[in-house]
Amino acid sequence: MTAIAVTGTGITPFGKRDESLKTLLLQACREALLEAERPRVDALFIGNFIGGPLANQEILGAMIAGELGLGPIPTMKTEGACASGGIAFRQAYQLVKAGEYDCVLVAGGEKMTNHPTETVITAVNYAMDNESSESFSGLTFPGFFGVLANRYMHEYGATKKHLALVAHKNRMYALNNPISQFKKPASIEEIMNARPITEPLGLFDCSPISDGAAAVVIQRTNSGGVEVLASGQSSGTPLMQEVPDMLRMNATYTSAQQAYAEAGFGPKELDVVELHDCFSMTEIIAIEELGLFEHGHGFEAVEQGQTKHGGTIPVNTSGGLLSKGHPIGATGVAQIVQIVQQLQGRACNQVDGAKIGLSQNLGGTGAYSTVHIFKKAGV
Amino acid sequence: MTAIAVTGTGITPFGKRDESLKTLLLQACREALLEAERPRVDALFIGNFIGGPLANQEILGAMIAGELGLGPIPTMKTEGACASGGIAFRQAYQLVKAGEYDCVLVAGGEKMTNHPTETVITAVNYAMDNESSESFSGLTFPGFFGVLANRYMHEYGATKKHLALVAHKNRMYALNNPISQFKKPASIEEIMNARPITEPLGLFDCSPISDGAAAVVIQRTNSGGVEVLASGQSSGTPLMQEVPDMLRMNATYTSAQQAYAEAGFGPKELDVVELHDCFSMTEIIAIEELGLFEHGHGFEAVEQGQTKHGGTIPVNTSGGLLSKGHPIGATGVAQIVQIVQQLQGRACNQVDGAKIGLSQNLGGTGAYSTVHIFKKAGV
Repeated sequence: MTAIAVTGTGITPFGKRDESLKTLLLQACREALLEAERPRVDALFIGNFIGGPLANQEILGAMIAGELGLGPIPTMKTEGACASGGIAFRQAYQLVKAGEYDCVLVAGGEKMTNHPTETVITAVNYAMDNESSESFSGLTFPGFFGVLANRYMHEYGATKKHLALVAHKNRMYALNNPISQFKKPASIEEIMNARPITEPLGLFDCSPISDGAAAVVIQRTNSGGVEVLASGQSSGTPLMQEVPDMLRMNATYTSAQQAYAEAGFGPKELDVVELHDCFSMTEIIAIEELGLFEHGHGFEAVEQGQTKHGGTIPVNTSGGLLSKGHPIGATGVAQIVQIVQQLQGRACNQVDGAKIGLSQNLGGTGAYSTVHIFKKAGV
Repeated sequence: MTAIAVTGTGITPFGKRDESLKTLLLQACREALLEAERPRVDALFIGNFIGGPLANQEILGAMIAGELGLGPIPTMKTEGACASGGIAFRQAYQLVKAGEYDCVLVAGGEKMTNHPTETVITAVNYAMDNESSESFSGLTFPGFFGVLANRYMHEYGATKKHLALVAHKNRMYALNNPISQFKKPASIEEIMNARPITEPLGLFDCSPISDGAAAVVIQRTNSGGVEVLASGQSSGTPLMQEVPDMLRMNATYTSAQQAYAEAGFGPKELDVVELHDCFSMTEIIAIEELGLFEHGHGFEAVEQGQTKHGGTIPVNTSGGLLSKGHPIGATGVAQIVQIVQQLQGRACNQVDGAKIGLSQNLGGTGAYSTVHIFKKAGV
């Protein structure tokens, strides 16, 4: 029986890289194509957010297809802020499922470190509604998630230490990931006492500025690979003033519910999860919205070690955005690379016997979310 | 029997507009939704090229879905330079055909006139391969198409007058299009004597810098609308040095062949065409690549008036990019608006009895091309 499966993965080191966006994408794509044993590729989709202003380059689709010698295939870039990579993968999955294509190469990449921080922040803020009073009054992404963290702490009794426990877990995982941006251990104390960014978020609570790329081959196949079981995608308001409940991230919840419905099972079946920890606080909200833990109890699960090896469900074994790094367009694809490698039994921070995995990719302050569910071959 | 059809169209005036990119997109979307009698929309895809650097705005998908009150639907932006709009429509068509969605709102837009020309050119040049020697040595889009025009004239005996005839035809059509950027007639002499941009291309041979947006509703329906019969998409090298034959635009040819194969007929069945006349020369190449006229004979067809009313096939009855305007992300969707209105018998420059129409949208110097074929209801 044929299945829709990921048959190849590729990823570059994340962090401050000398290579251009084009070179990073080519490196990840070549690795994925070789691993998939050079399939005939019918289409190429690339997740990227701000290639124009930061890398002086759009038309990544045609350029990369040409350089790889894939022929005159259909190709495009998809953009949904930090969910650009997850969206690219979803398009590929839907069109392979539909029989439009047999094999699609999906890549994601961003080049961000070659500019002053102000330039990067200006470009990243394209992901806010820039005609809104929130943008005019200076709300930023750390600002939004800082407000969310304050509200969460006020409402449920969580503390800065719970945020630090998330950052610490992901940092410890990152130490074992050869491609991660941060390879230096950090103690809970160091994390809690780090330079404040937006109270209560400190330096370690915020994902960094990164370069990097990732790629996967998704195809209809009857031999091997990691099966793709389901895809969900949802959207939400980019405005804080329109969020009905600051402690809910509706796009994450809805996209997960869609994916569980398509897979035919819920979060209890999951063995490993990669989710969008753009801030430590975002991870706590996401484990609740994905149904891994109850609303208002995510921070307790973190404290009990339930999101680590030996706990209920290991989360962000790659090191996450916080410590693996967050080259924006690459992130959604890189999450899938980690889940696929987990289900193949060859990941960094391998979860023994992992059979079912989930990846969740967020864009903006909840403007986009994609969720994908994967199954180990032959299970 | 159900068909996949365009059931609503919307378009803003093109040109120098006071409205923001968001407002323009909302205006086009609202018009299309009202015309389609407010269907339940399952997804929103937006074609846009350089919203970040020129309009300070990405995440157009979530923002527009939110403002329109469409709920937490899946949404994204697609980018393929000037073919961004055609690509957005293709994704929608494929996913409605696959049964993933019943109804998709497709929009395209760009805001370009609120910057100095140098800023716009820098952003537009994101559509070149900017690590190439061609980019470093200063090749631009007018440069590329100027070389192509010189080669065409040398090879086939065409003259500047043939280019002027294309520009003149499209200008005359634009006079009757209420949304077109240019409403002032121009004579052949005026066009031929205009300020040179890149020899042999003068001011009227080049599409302008424009603001504007367009939208269509595509859905599975058993009542009315203009049926979508076929979609083709192809890509090509963005580098002049890798083009095997300067007088061929392979992406245009291949995407057209795909669409003809899906439709089950060739160019002889077409009654009206909108194609990508970013330069007057590009229209002559495109009528050849689409199979409307033989290679090397397009300029003669233009001279004989074969691409006007009364000729073999009226081309760019909207005024085309040259005179209707070219707000980049909007263009591919605006072409579809014109073809749909032609097949509904209510277009500007209506072609009597038009039953079958085609739209072709190019990105870069042949890096992307999409072709779509449409059929009048009940034919």
